[in-house]
Amino acid sequence: MYKIDLNCDMGESFGSYVQGNDEEMMKYITSANIACGYHAGDPHVMRQTVKLAKKYDVAIGAHPGYPDLMGFGRREINCTSEEIQDYILYQMGALREFARAYDMRINHCKPHGALYMRAMEDEKVARAILEALHKIDSEMIVFAVNNSAMLHEAIRMGVPVAKEGYSDREHREDGNLILTRKSTTITDYEAMANRVVRMVKDKKVITFDEKDADIDVQTICIHGDTSGAPELAQAIVKALKKADVEIVNTKSILA
Amino acid sequence: MYKIDLNCDMGESFGSYVQGNDEEMMKYITSANIACGYHAGDPHVMRQTVKLAKKYDVAIGAHPGYPDLMGFGRREINCTSEEIQDYILYQMGALREFARAYDMRINHCKPHGALYMRAMEDEKVARAILEALHKIDSEMIVFAVNNSAMLHEAIRMGVPVAKEGYSDREHREDGNLILTRKSTTITDYEAMANRVVRMVKDKKVITFDEKDADIDVQTICIHGDTSGAPELAQAIVKALKKADVEIVNTKSILA
Amino acid sequence: MYKIDLNCDMGESFGSYVQGNDEEMMKYITSANIACGYHAGDPHVMRQTVKLAKKYDVAIGAHPGYPDLMGFGRREINCTSEEIQDYILYQMGALREFARAYDMRINHCKPHGALYMRAMEDEKVARAILEALHKIDSEMIVFAVNNSAMLHEAIRMGVPVAKEGYSDREHREDGNLILTRKSTTITDYEAMANRVVRMVKDKKVITFDEKDADIDVQTICIHGDTSGAPELAQAIVKALKKADVEIVNTKSILA
Amino acid sequence: MYKIDLNCDMGESFGSYVQGNDEEMMKYITSANIACGYHAGDPHVMRQTVKLAKKYDVAIGAHPGYPDLMGFGRREINCTSEEIQDYILYQMGALREFARAYDMRINHCKPHGALYMRAMEDEKVARAILEALHKIDSEMIVFAVNNSAMLHEAIRMGVPVAKEGYSDREHREDGNLILTRKSTTITDYEAMANRVVRMVKDKKVITFDEKDADIDVQTICIHGDTSGAPELAQAIVKALKKADVEIVNTKSILA
Repeated sequence: MYKIDLNCDMGESFGSYVQGNDEEMMKYITSANIACGYHAGDPHVMRQTVKLAKKYDVAIGAHPGYPDLMGFGRREINCTSEEIQDYILYQMGALREFARAYDMRINHCKPHGALYMRAMEDEKVARAILEALHKIDSEMIVFAVNNSAMLHEAIRMGVPVAKEGYSDREHREDGNLILTRKSTTITDYEAMANRVVRMVKDKKVITFDEKDADIDVQTICIHGDTSGAPELAQAIVKALKKADVEIVNTKSILA
Repeated sequence: MYKIDLNCDMGESFGSYVQGNDEEMMKYITSANIACGYHAGDPHVMRQTVKLAKKYDVAIGAHPGYPDLMGFGRREINCTSEEIQDYILYQMGALREFARAYDMRINHCKPHGALYMRAMEDEKVARAILEALHKIDSEMIVFAVNNSAMLHEAIRMGVPVAKEGYSDREHREDGNLILTRKSTTITDYEAMANRVVRMVKDKKVITFDEKDADIDVQTICIHGDTSGAPELAQAIVKALKKADVEIVNTKSILA
Repeated sequence: MYKIDLNCDMGESFGSYVQGNDEEMMKYITSANIACGYHAGDPHVMRQTVKLAKKYDVAIGAHPGYPDLMGFGRREINCTSEEIQDYILYQMGALREFARAYDMRINHCKPHGALYMRAMEDEKVARAILEALHKIDSEMIVFAVNNSAMLHEAIRMGVPVAKEGYSDREHREDGNLILTRKSTTITDYEAMANRVVRMVKDKKVITFDEKDADIDVQTICIHGDTSGAPELAQAIVKALKKADVEIVNTKSILA
Repeated sequence: MYKIDLNCDMGESFGSYVQGNDEEMMKYITSANIACGYHAGDPHVMRQTVKLAKKYDVAIGAHPGYPDLMGFGRREINCTSEEIQDYILYQMGALREFARAYDMRINHCKPHGALYMRAMEDEKVARAILEALHKIDSEMIVFAVNNSAMLHEAIRMGVPVAKEGYSDREHREDGNLILTRKSTTITDYEAMANRVVRMVKDKKVITFDEKDADIDVQTICIHGDTSGAPELAQAIVKALKKADVEIVNTKSILA
């Protein structure tokens, strides 16, 4: 039996600014990566997002970023490993309190934007993040793309890790897979959904440069700000069910 | 046997800005109220302050404030009760994560500045704060001055509360006691220390307008940014010991 | 010949967060009140908004607010008059630099949200704002509702002032007019537009409690975040033109 | 007749946080680089610093930084050239308004921390900054170290530039001079002062690795947060006067 988790970045509204359609996305996904107030999100948004996740029975994860609201956490900031650890603990703890208030647990952690990219490429930073997470909760799952520094370090350190593919970004081939920032050129939801099914069942994906690459994934990311995200999510769910793939959160898959 | 707790606001540095002499104060106090990044403090400072509290065996409490670094949390912001609850959960959670990282627990909560003043005067806000705290940890102690909205609501709701007097501020008489913002005019550390001993043992204090008022205290605040704070703290500790008053944290006193 | 200015709050996007449809609104208005980075807006947004105003030949004004992005400047912060003056100079200057970069001048100043409300009600704050503005540019026009503290002080001090009515908020009667925060219950754009025409030509408006009140206006505010704002703006422009009212900025009206 | 300008970063306090001893330093310097609220400083501090500069007849310059108060602007943020230009205009304009309020002009611009370092090394960023500055004021002077990208671009573009040496940092030799972040190991104020005199009169400096390098300077930086900064400044002024070097601001030198 094939299994896959569907994850989406959530709670990225701030104050009176609304970003994405969180409730609509919650209907299709199994993991919500919730922003924690540094690159996006605020305490009110965090509470509402945790409530939504509970309502739709979606596993919650922390989605910590650099302290850069103006840049939405997408700009690399040359922080030390210690600074990154402190920022992650701060954001993680803030989210955990809202989770506790609704009797939920934090299932996973997926860093955001520039911090995610750095953790995938920079071994030292990946290790710093993993050490911080492992110390506070040895069962917490991290998300990492194939062949990344984060993945290698997580395996080495015995931190549970879910390998991640992207429904709406192009993948790169270099033996294995690393994220590009390029949005997929596929605009047909059904075709995108079928690509996801192929990643899950055949462990294969066509790269941005038209090669057929190996890939191993336990979770698929759907960006909430991708145009037509709910429709894409719906198409993916439909295609996965049709292909007899069970959609469950990463805890069930890694168990 | 008389008992008293000595508390001090801590961790109010931010980035490269240093405020107070936290390590020096830790030697004398039994409760550290740690800023949580909204009115002061940052993740690095929070970690360092928790470590210091552990080193000196000082009970840690959250010191949440309004999101107003420029005003140091001293300006009233007309927030709703729901906003205040969300801000407290956010800050509380962030601090709790650092506490967990050093195997410590959050013992108490003392709101900061304008938020503290409002909670002492505004029943609705006091209740909002207490509900938020009680839900996440029914044993968490709140600090409140005599005859305040916070005190009355805490008693009514069954939330553990430590009554607070001030070593370096003037008290007011109006039946009972409410904080004024006026610094005490006493500049002699020994006299200030003796005033503390009198609050603890005789349950009496001379008010700002020269009256002799009743007061009941389980904790005494020493402001870290009062000029000569470590010397004042030292004098208080010396006077209390001489008067056979045991200096212990609020958990031990309320037990 | 009747004349009126149409103003709209602009440049309230921030980072990746989009608010309102500024370019669409620019087609109908004659005054853009541009946020300056405290309650909303950022340097990039400010530049883009100034460029848009230039493109559509719209007079630009500063729209300074409290330093409260999370609350979008809608929460009263208990600032001193001196703090308010400093915040206004800071924001005004930042906007002026973008104006200079595109050979434009700042025509007017309309404080935002809670700061606007306070300036309408609090004589001391109104005076502080006017003094700051007058000192840096004695020709700068302020916007103020009928019978407000801001209006009275501006007249007394000789600061040019444009009296403001609202297309999409209810007005109050108490001898004269003061803003309520209540959105108008009129949902028909044509009816709203006709109400504007009546304010301009007959100097009359039906209040929220169904009375017919006197009103004198040189500028009409259309909120960009009112649902269907561009359609409303279009309807107002159409109705004003049909009624032979000239739509020009406040400088032309006050000249 | 030899001439030199002495510059110091100023106005880097924030809210209740005090940094440096600005008034004391004003007594010795001829150029104040004033922080503009992004890496440090706030509107109140900016006003006070401009007032101090006026009182002591010190030329004022903008000291813009990255939007990173927590990191004090010392961490590289991977901003685009356009973002940097917008941040500089925003900060420059804010400061200019306070200057106008006190009938002063902005004489120069010295970017802060990581932004300064990047402008010295990255030609594209140097050019972006210079274009932004030149457009708003063609007479504004920039500060740049010997042999830096900023210096070369300024000369190429015809932007007035003052070459800068450091009283309290080590210099590097590689043909010419580029800043190191290393504080000088010289702790004797008189020796440091004599090193400054030698830079000015002999155009020579001993590098961090004990070589004797050529250097050409029109301005010398004294960091206000260097331990004993006022004493160092006093020693430098004394030594320069003794050596018949005139201490004047960069406008007088470049004229």
